[in-house]
Amino acid sequence: MVGGGPGAFIGPVHRMAAELDGRLKLVAGAFSRDAAKSAAAGQAWGARAYGDFREMIAAEAGRDDGAEVVAIVTPNHLHFEPAAAALKAGLHVMSDKPATLNLAQARELAGIVAASGRLYGLTHVYTGYPMVREAREIVRRGDLGAVRKVVVEYPQGWLSEPIEQGGDKQAMWRADPAQSGVGGCIGDIGTHAFNLAEFVSGLAVERICADVAAVVPGRVLDDDCNVLLRFAGGARGVLIASQISAGARNGVSLKVYGEKGGLTWRHERATELTVDWLHAPTQILHAASPYLSGSALAGARIPTGHPEGFIEAFANLYRDFATAVAEGRVSADPVPGIEAGVRTMAFVETAVAASRAGEGWVALEGAAACAR
Amino acid sequence: MVGGGPGAFIGPVHRMAAELDGRLKLVAGAFSRDAAKSAAAGQAWGARAYGDFREMIAAEAGRDDGAEVVAIVTPNHLHFEPAAAALKAGLHVMSDKPATLNLAQARELAGIVAASGRLYGLTHVYTGYPMVREAREIVRRGDLGAVRKVVVEYPQGWLSEPIEQGGDKQAMWRADPAQSGVGGCIGDIGTHAFNLAEFVSGLAVERICADVAAVVPGRVLDDDCNVLLRFAGGARGVLIASQISAGARNGVSLKVYGEKGGLTWRHERATELTVDWLHAPTQILHAASPYLSGSALAGARIPTGHPEGFIEAFANLYRDFATAVAEGRVSADPVPGIEAGVRTMAFVETAVAASRAGEGWVALEGAAACAR
Amino acid sequence: MVGGGPGAFIGPVHRMAAELDGRLKLVAGAFSRDAAKSAAAGQAWGARAYGDFREMIAAEAGRDDGAEVVAIVTPNHLHFEPAAAALKAGLHVMSDKPATLNLAQARELAGIVAASGRLYGLTHVYTGYPMVREAREIVRRGDLGAVRKVVVEYPQGWLSEPIEQGGDKQAMWRADPAQSGVGGCIGDIGTHAFNLAEFVSGLAVERICADVAAVVPGRVLDDDCNVLLRFAGGARGVLIASQISAGARNGVSLKVYGEKGGLTWRHERATELTVDWLHAPTQILHAASPYLSGSALAGARIPTGHPEGFIEAFANLYRDFATAVAEGRVSADPVPGIEAGVRTMAFVETAVAASRAGEGWVALEGAAACAR
Amino acid sequence: MVGGGPGAFIGPVHRMAAELDGRLKLVAGAFSRDAAKSAAAGQAWGARAYGDFREMIAAEAGRDDGAEVVAIVTPNHLHFEPAAAALKAGLHVMSDKPATLNLAQARELAGIVAASGRLYGLTHVYTGYPMVREAREIVRRGDLGAVRKVVVEYPQGWLSEPIEQGGDKQAMWRADPAQSGVGGCIGDIGTHAFNLAEFVSGLAVERICADVAAVVPGRVLDDDCNVLLRFAGGARGVLIASQISAGARNGVSLKVYGEKGGLTWRHERATELTVDWLHAPTQILHAASPYLSGSALAGARIPTGHPEGFIEAFANLYRDFATAVAEGRVSADPVPGIEAGVRTMAFVETAVAASRAGEGWVALEGAAACAR
Repeated sequence: MVGGGPGAFIGPVHRMAAELDGRLKLVAGAFSRDAAKSAAAGQAWGARAYGDFREMIAAEAGRDDGAEVVAIVTPNHLHFEPAAAALKAGLHVMSDKPATLNLAQARELAGIVAASGRLYGLTHVYTGYPMVREAREIVRRGDLGAVRKVVVEYPQGWLSEPIEQGGDKQAMWRADPAQSGVGGCIGDIGTHAFNLAEFVSGLAVERICADVAAVVPGRVLDDDCNVLLRFAGGARGVLIASQISAGARNGVSLKVYGEKGGLTWRHERATELTVDWLHAPTQILHAASPYLSGSALAGARIPTGHPEGFIEAFANLYRDFATAVAEGRVSADPVPGIEAGVRTMAFVETAVAASRAGEGWVALEGAAACAR
Repeated sequence: MVGGGPGAFIGPVHRMAAELDGRLKLVAGAFSRDAAKSAAAGQAWGARAYGDFREMIAAEAGRDDGAEVVAIVTPNHLHFEPAAAALKAGLHVMSDKPATLNLAQARELAGIVAASGRLYGLTHVYTGYPMVREAREIVRRGDLGAVRKVVVEYPQGWLSEPIEQGGDKQAMWRADPAQSGVGGCIGDIGTHAFNLAEFVSGLAVERICADVAAVVPGRVLDDDCNVLLRFAGGARGVLIASQISAGARNGVSLKVYGEKGGLTWRHERATELTVDWLHAPTQILHAASPYLSGSALAGARIPTGHPEGFIEAFANLYRDFATAVAEGRVSADPVPGIEAGVRTMAFVETAVAASRAGEGWVALEGAAACAR
Repeated sequence: MVGGGPGAFIGPVHRMAAELDGRLKLVAGAFSRDAAKSAAAGQAWGARAYGDFREMIAAEAGRDDGAEVVAIVTPNHLHFEPAAAALKAGLHVMSDKPATLNLAQARELAGIVAASGRLYGLTHVYTGYPMVREAREIVRRGDLGAVRKVVVEYPQGWLSEPIEQGGDKQAMWRADPAQSGVGGCIGDIGTHAFNLAEFVSGLAVERICADVAAVVPGRVLDDDCNVLLRFAGGARGVLIASQISAGARNGVSLKVYGEKGGLTWRHERATELTVDWLHAPTQILHAASPYLSGSALAGARIPTGHPEGFIEAFANLYRDFATAVAEGRVSADPVPGIEAGVRTMAFVETAVAASRAGEGWVALEGAAACAR
Repeated sequence: MVGGGPGAFIGPVHRMAAELDGRLKLVAGAFSRDAAKSAAAGQAWGARAYGDFREMIAAEAGRDDGAEVVAIVTPNHLHFEPAAAALKAGLHVMSDKPATLNLAQARELAGIVAASGRLYGLTHVYTGYPMVREAREIVRRGDLGAVRKVVVEYPQGWLSEPIEQGGDKQAMWRADPAQSGVGGCIGDIGTHAFNLAEFVSGLAVERICADVAAVVPGRVLDDDCNVLLRFAGGARGVLIASQISAGARNGVSLKVYGEKGGLTWRHERATELTVDWLHAPTQILHAASPYLSGSALAGARIPTGHPEGFIEAFANLYRDFATAVAEGRVSADPVPGIEAGVRTMAFVETAVAASRAGEGWVALEGAAACAR
């Protein structure tokens, strides 16, 4: 693991998720650039500790019992280098999102992944929820007919006040372009929303019209994004991501409308998937029910009615990734890979640039090279 | 009443709503241009029947016991003339939305209203729901701090198929530019969404960036609209209105986010208003509860926990209008008036034109003359 | 109308409901025993006013244009006499629940109804909700298989404090045995719950085990009831009715479980009916949807997604009753009749007596004579 | 670990939960009485495997690096002996519920626990949910005033058909008195409901009136239970537990009504706690929100809006237990202990016996010795 030292939010989630099913074990980490802190974390977690990721990768790649998969849980500006180094050293990589600090890095990383023959996964955790996977299956099977419209919302409220100026560690790096890149909210959670819309609809966004804003006075990076979408084939969409939607917690929601019906998934009701039909009663599908498709069922550990949540969704990504590694697959699908990383970085850069320039509709340049 | 003959949907709602509280009574109508049909409707409802609205207005204005208020429940192209005639004859007007067939008519009607000294109300029914009025009060009182973001959605699915080609009467006139104007979905329900957003936020939309589309093959007018909004003072917004959101019923929802919290109202839970606070537990306010503001409480007929719905919301508009008439007020506020009509028609025309032209952000021209 | 004078809750509901569909009109009333108050109410509502129900019945029965249906909206102790008088005078009766002050009166009234050849309806309003009627249809059709269990809950909280001692008019008569009978909460809302359970399940309660209590200090009549039920054929049930469930509004809910699935109806989501299947996804049926049964569809005035509520449910009872009167039917089914009144009064008296005596299971004596 | 071999449901949950926070590690197990199966499970989980729990306890107690805590995840008839043996060998015990096969064993085990000086915990998992703990705090703080009524429901539908005759392993042992004891549904999930009601209300059940039935033909043990409750101090309650509520998944719900308001917790919305107030708006408290009490906050691993579920609730019990062990406490509170085990076994035996005998209200004998 790279990152995950004291005060981290997502590092512990990666550890719990990776180990939940007994398939992976945290054996080593460069948990902090402060060697003492890294050592302390290593001791707490029973893992070999390093003060530097390069040192870790070199050492682990050289051990017979060394790490096989490197989890990257650092801020955005520290995604590319460890990922590239690990892949080049022959290790697989699970990286927190977004893939890199910018699109150029993402495209470069895509080349490194391709050359490495190793697997690369991006923890777009929402794709790990069983009912999101069921949604994808429903669309794929054509149950809804052709997709016409996608509405994805990701409202948060925790940055409604300038808490990055008050020492909130999670806010500080997200508000800093050097660590986050050109996207604030759009990079942090807009990327999740974008990925989720493409993952479930099976359609690639081709054009966007974006309103990306920094609402809280004094903030440099955006904290509110509203984007009109046009998908390949003509379907329309709306993407709303916000960190100044005061009072909102983490209310990701996705609606996909086809010719015959529409489906709705909401993070706050993560174990349910609602399908409203044009000519029949609404259905609610429940996680872990035998009538679900294989991919959704595989994501359940316990019987229906016993809620599984964020950690379990994260664990599904790790489990699938571990399986792909164990079986020597060339792709960890359905775990999002570097092509999703390139697409989301193209989305971030295009939206920010077009919005700043006051442009309307623009093409999602740079994403095209990587077909989904 | 003008319109409301056999097969009408909204005519009977107007009648039930107007009479619900015993304040108004249907006494006369030009229910249909087919004199026999009009007569039959008049007999069924115990009202004087006319075959022509001009005839009705002339006759009723001349009677001592004649109608005082003319309700207009016809398709859009038949809103302006009866309204103008009634006002000129000294009668008050309650009109179904949108105010007129186009912006020019709306602006002309605004002049006629001003000159007439009569009251003019638009049945934007969502403003009649007690919890919508409570939402407006909460914003007005400043409980949320300054408004930063508004998201209004109005998804329907009933036009997912080209039923206007199959003889559906409600669909036929809505799909016909001669009867509907340049807006299809945006005129039919986008206007509700637009009005609702302005009504609750207390802010005027100044600029828009619209994606207005006809999705169903063969359809002339739009059936899906996604619009980015910019309000006076800088608040941002998103308006989504659709009649091809297959499976959706009539799921109007409104979210208004301020500095300190956000409120959510959903038509499907019309008697509830949710307020999510940045630093405190979520609150759910229930209709008819003593802790509500006066305007919300006044809209309840029965104790909390006994649901009131669409007809009652409609009736609240009629009751308020009747009170304003009885008391000789110069405005029927909170019933939306002609200025709301002008604004919504400006929204429709601007959005349709800008979207067709492929423009991005455009100013809401034509709406400015009527301050809210 | 008998009752419904100033300060009444249910009287205005009856008037609005009866007139909503233009089938009935309030023409006369003994609105109050205070002749001046009755006259004032009559003037407000445009109806002939009487100071005494006997006077009203005699006069109206003697007029060619006199009332055909007498609506009784008084406290319980004033149900029997007006009903009996009206029936004997050849008028039909719509009575608020419960039918009478006690079981003996109910049984006597059953005889009077039978002898009169007139129709008698009880406004158990929950049976007027379209989705309750759909629930009954689903059970009748056997979709759930044999019914095994019924859970009906009716929690209210408004009597959590002794407000009858503080002058609350609605609370005062309900807390007074002379006006309410032996049942407080059980008579007021337990009867609704009991009727609803039998109405939807189609099963008669045969034995009960009741815990009926006065929880608020100083209260004479019960304010909280918990009852185990045994239905004909062996199905089990639980009935919970309470007026000291602090914070509860009017949260009637009904769950009926069969061999293959279970249905849930909740008053707070009155336009929805949920059916959970043993081996298939959950379904939510929405009011006014074309896929519903005829009886549910007939109860809708407006398209799906436009909520109808308590007044409309009440109006459905009045509309059905008016139809039965107009068509000269011998029963106003599905409007509950006097047999439902006898059964609910037997339930009240049996439960109160058995609970006071500390008995366990007892038969529902006195209800048997009236087969459902 | 005792039990948890192939096909087990709850064994893996114990393992995931125990290890989630890195505080405990599965080091050894008697996973199956089939030595080969046990060995296979041990290998899969990286743990020492034994074919017999006595052997395991002896060996582990004798190792310096041996297990400190024994988790018992076997069917009910195999709870007492391993627990007793482990305690006598100086090991702590975390046992699945119910504590033992019958009340006599539970009382005997209480003595063994007391004599051992070791900690004993019962995995009544619902007490591990943060919002259940918040509910207990709200009641304890007196926010609701005195508790007047408790309604706890635990509907499941998976035993609606006689699947124990079709080879369903989970159903087979639950339907077998030799393995389950005298209680079927009441022992399996009624005990959870009973414990949850006492845990949150802080009140002991003193008397019950039970209807315990075997509904599915051919079933020996009960599959449906409806019980009236009387708590110390006079509060009333209703407990409903069922495994034939077809279509129900695992819908535990708890309502506690006090003088000033009522709270509702539902497993299907596990991260929310609703508090309805008599005189103020409803509140919804969300897990991991800073405004929660310490015990609720301590149970959250990730920020609000990121759902945690069943495994995390289970893990909270293990984490609290591990803390109590590490700190040498004399109680693992809030983890339910053997006194809860005695009370729930008294509930099961009393309810089953009284219901069979057709008795009404009976005292909860045998539970009194263990004050809560």
